Amino acid sequence: MMGSRWSQAPGVRRRGPELERAILDAALEQLGAVGWNALTMEGVASGARTGKAALYRRWPSKADLVADALRTRLPPLGQIPDLGSVREDLYALCVRIRDVMRSRPGQALHVVLHECDPSHAGRFHGLIWSALHEPAHRHIGELVRRGIDRGDVRPDATGPFLVEVIPAMMMYRAKVCGSEWRDADIAEMIDEVMVPLLRV
Amino acid sequence: MMGSRWSQAPGVRRRGPELERAILDAALEQLGAVGWNALTMEGVASGARTGKAALYRRWPSKADLVADALRTRLPPLGQIPDLGSVREDLYALCVRIRDVMRSRPGQALHVVLHECDPSHAGRFHGLIWSALHEPAHRHIGELVRRGIDRGDVRPDATGPFLVEVIPAMMMYRAKVCGSEWRDADIAEMIDEVMVPLLRV
Repeated sequence: MMGSRWSQAPGVRRRGPELERAILDAALEQLGAVGWNALTMEGVASGARTGKAALYRRWPSKADLVADALRTRLPPLGQIPDLGSVREDLYALCVRIRDVMRSRPGQALHVVLHECDPSHAGRFHGLIWSALHEPAHRHIGELVRRGIDRGDVRPDATGPFLVEVIPAMMMYRAKVCGSEWRDADIAEMIDEVMVPLLRV
Repeated sequence: MMGSRWSQAPGVRRRGPELERAILDAALEQLGAVGWNALTMEGVASGARTGKAALYRRWPSKADLVADALRTRLPPLGQIPDLGSVREDLYALCVRIRDVMRSRPGQALHVVLHECDPSHAGRFHGLIWSALHEPAHRHIGELVRRGIDRGDVRPDATGPFLVEVIPAMMMYRAKVCGSEWRDADIAEMIDEVMVPLLRV
């Protein structure tokens, strides 16, 4: 096969982890440029200045490669410091969720979910669940408990539906209404929905 | 063209509206049986025991036919009578929304949105917006105002985000979590989210 490890440009000598990073970056770039359907292992190899064999040694299929690129490149939500009120804490977390969705890997994941056929949809839905929704639920639960301890959240705000309100609202406006979440929209949603919902 | 109005089975004589109903029913049936991608004007014509020409005289394309079938067959949300409390009123509306989503045309619309390519997605998103989301927002706004008049909803529950909470939650569980909405889940969501959010 032509596309072996020797086909890379002369002078470019990359070892395992470095080459792997270059391939994953090239996969995300291809995804942004041509979408899921038109993305090929050949195109990614060429973007990473390596051969197809280097890709297939690591990822048996395009879906494996793209899933790995998204999983390793999606920014984590990170910890929200105590900003003094549940209102400020939740606002900060929503801005963070919005920024992850807007990030290059976040947008690439959106493209994949939109374009891929049902045989791959389950895998990428699982990826967005474990990389974004599940951590969002966990963080919201923590901020609400922090509010209960602080005294600005009612003590019985503990049910399983509560942590879904914010991701549900954010997804709904983005998907159904096709609207962007500006900072001011996030603040309005927190004041109109989350603050009354959680108040003592 | 072979598939003319004369190709229908002998003894079946249908005039305009009756034939149109048969075609729209056949379109929904085909959608349920083979999905959006495999649906053909020929298959629908055969299902309705008529010819392709009868379809093309009315609908220039498969997208036009399917959009019309969904628009005319999706059950309306209907009015919710005053059940004595905002809790009962919203519960009844949520059950209704769930039932529309679960109806044969509701599931067919789901299939189309999942399968169709981006050039058609806008049209079918518009259809679900005007047939389900927009009426849901309007009905929720009315039930909340009824609660304000009744006295079991705080008078300032008037912001634009409030009417999105229920459809957002319902879509989120169905799409992201992949869960069914049983009656008990709806009741729990109303008690855990909507009642505290609206209480005086």
